Amino acid sequence: MSKGRLEAFSDGVIAIIITIMVLELKVPHDASLEALKHLVPVFISYILSFIYVGIYWNNHHHMLHATRSVSGAVLWANLHLLFWLSLIPFVTAWMGENHFAKWPVICYGVVLAMNGIAYTILAKTLINLHKENSMLGEAFGNDSKGKLSVGIYAAAIAASFIQPWLGFALYIVVACMWFIPDRRIENKINKEEQR
Amino acid sequence: MSKGRLEAFSDGVIAIIITIMVLELKVPHDASLEALKHLVPVFISYILSFIYVGIYWNNHHHMLHATRSVSGAVLWANLHLLFWLSLIPFVTAWMGENHFAKWPVICYGVVLAMNGIAYTILAKTLINLHKENSMLGEAFGNDSKGKLSVGIYAAAIAASFIQPWLGFALYIVVACMWFIPDRRIENKINKEEQR
Amino acid sequence: MSKGRLEAFSDGVIAIIITIMVLELKVPHDASLEALKHLVPVFISYILSFIYVGIYWNNHHHMLHATRSVSGAVLWANLHLLFWLSLIPFVTAWMGENHFAKWPVICYGVVLAMNGIAYTILAKTLINLHKENSMLGEAFGNDSKGKLSVGIYAAAIAASFIQPWLGFALYIVVACMWFIPDRRIENKINKEEQR
Amino acid sequence: MSKGRLEAFSDGVIAIIITIMVLELKVPHDASLEALKHLVPVFISYILSFIYVGIYWNNHHHMLHATRSVSGAVLWANLHLLFWLSLIPFVTAWMGENHFAKWPVICYGVVLAMNGIAYTILAKTLINLHKENSMLGEAFGNDSKGKLSVGIYAAAIAASFIQPWLGFALYIVVACMWFIPDRRIENKINKEEQR
Repeated sequence: MSKGRLEAFSDGVIAIIITIMVLELKVPHDASLEALKHLVPVFISYILSFIYVGIYWNNHHHMLHATRSVSGAVLWANLHLLFWLSLIPFVTAWMGENHFAKWPVICYGVVLAMNGIAYTILAKTLINLHKENSMLGEAFGNDSKGKLSVGIYAAAIAASFIQPWLGFALYIVVACMWFIPDRRIENKINKEEQR
Repeated sequence: MSKGRLEAFSDGVIAIIITIMVLELKVPHDASLEALKHLVPVFISYILSFIYVGIYWNNHHHMLHATRSVSGAVLWANLHLLFWLSLIPFVTAWMGENHFAKWPVICYGVVLAMNGIAYTILAKTLINLHKENSMLGEAFGNDSKGKLSVGIYAAAIAASFIQPWLGFALYIVVACMWFIPDRRIENKINKEEQR
Repeated sequence: MSKGRLEAFSDGVIAIIITIMVLELKVPHDASLEALKHLVPVFISYILSFIYVGIYWNNHHHMLHATRSVSGAVLWANLHLLFWLSLIPFVTAWMGENHFAKWPVICYGVVLAMNGIAYTILAKTLINLHKENSMLGEAFGNDSKGKLSVGIYAAAIAASFIQPWLGFALYIVVACMWFIPDRRIENKINKEEQR
Repeated sequence: MSKGRLEAFSDGVIAIIITIMVLELKVPHDASLEALKHLVPVFISYILSFIYVGIYWNNHHHMLHATRSVSGAVLWANLHLLFWLSLIPFVTAWMGENHFAKWPVICYGVVLAMNGIAYTILAKTLINLHKENSMLGEAFGNDSKGKLSVGIYAAAIAASFIQPWLGFALYIVVACMWFIPDRRIENKINKEEQR
């Protein structure tokens, strides 16, 4: 089964997710600069989520690039990831509108952690399918970066019970960690192609 | 006529349908965990509809994969399916917001049944077009799974008049039945390719 | 310049237009069947607009299929068509919510007429670009069907001043007229390929 | 790394941006022509933004067309551009609903200027990647048109402090300047292909 439509459908869903978040920047009825100030927390959480969804798209792009074909299990593992990504706009808006209060920050972290887990499941499903082709498996390795991320999310959730801003700061740390696209796969691809 | 744009357009529409449903998860103004509890029924119906739309996308993917070309009739049969799919976000939200009350649950079933019928019409139109190529026809067979689904939807609608939760449970049953992508076509494709 | 991205972008925009219209079917707070009755006019205008946008997508598909390349002028002629298509959700909702009152029905007709004109401009721009390749030009001919449609729109707008339902009936007439995809081009393509 | 998915994802995001702007044309509850008059400023700013997003899509199309491959840095430069494009619907609605008041017009200009800068960054990143292939670099030249645009935006922002309509007029001037797609690249491509 070809991967073309899986990529196209994922691109469509991720494009919509990244764009509808901006709809939560509710247009103020007032034309003053003051009116914009109330939107600052919503805007900050929009930026962070835009970067997160961008990271997922980039990594999804890299991972599928290193893939030859897909199976029924991959389709569902992918839909599972898209499901958790689709909840990002909701928690983003909730967190922004409530000025980074405890529960919204915790839920944001839970959704991020579930996304991380769903991405790992998708990666494992793809690696399983390409047993003979070890490239993706080698590139993914023992996924220390993914495990570390989920660990930091857990720490961030725990920290948010005491001080939500600490949790939020940890989410930024993970985003920075992933900002650079998954070099592991990119390097692997380049090496393979040079052989 | 090539099937590329039909797939691309369907991917776009289905991607939007599956994503805009999340907009019905209205962001609560309150930052308490309590505020999320009110969203639980909306969230449950979101999950079920996400799975249903995912099933349709998967099966659409498989069916078109086994297709060589499309005709004007196929374009309209496909738009007819997309029309009924486009009503899923509406009935999902209505059912969730009214905590699975009688009429919303019934209407949800009616829309699901119409989707099933529209999918069958699309399949028949494609089989008709590929007369010589019996693969799709053989794979689809007498469509016992499709007929059974519409039968269960009918039973669910009837049951909802007495107890809506019974109807809802039957919708879950059908979703489970289809969760595995249409193996019939996948198996057929593999067999053909082995020859 | 290749036509691939023009098709992909148009597919995206048209997919969004056809899908966001359903957002105007506002979910009633009430779970009664009575609550749905208020939505009937909105639903009827949704169906008509869904068919119209479907017709435009089908014909756009056929026209671009008969096209080899695109130019800067084509990109803008296409964006011009997408602009008028993007106004269909607005007039659809206005017409539906006001139960087919005079001004909304008139504006609906104006937007349809502008879409017809924009489609003709796009066709002429494409024909101009493919001078040597007369297929598209021959298939389009003197565009009697397009001219007739704009004529009926004009009549419908005039009739709506007296009786909006008459205008609405004429919009249905034009939709029926175009329901069958642009056979002229399909036939031409088949003939060319047989040669 | 192939550019296909970058184009597809960008097409998706830009298609959504250009289409969701129309959602700000809030459907009036009133069926009178009078009700539409209140929407005139929103409609005017919609038209301008539609043209701007159209310009960006056209130029993006041309630029990527002259590109062979993409890198991780290009993916992020592209996401950065999409981020600023995603803010256009917000400032468009704010400007329209407040009848071109001072602060909304200024913010509209700031977002346009940031888009111009983000586009330049993307262009430079692509030129950097294709060092050996000077076509894109030559076509882009010293980017006098881009620099002029940002200069005019700055002038427009300054002018808006005194008279917002002056700023708005300058935004129209820049749009006219770019209305014709980036001939530099189109000409370069044609020349290269003739060699």
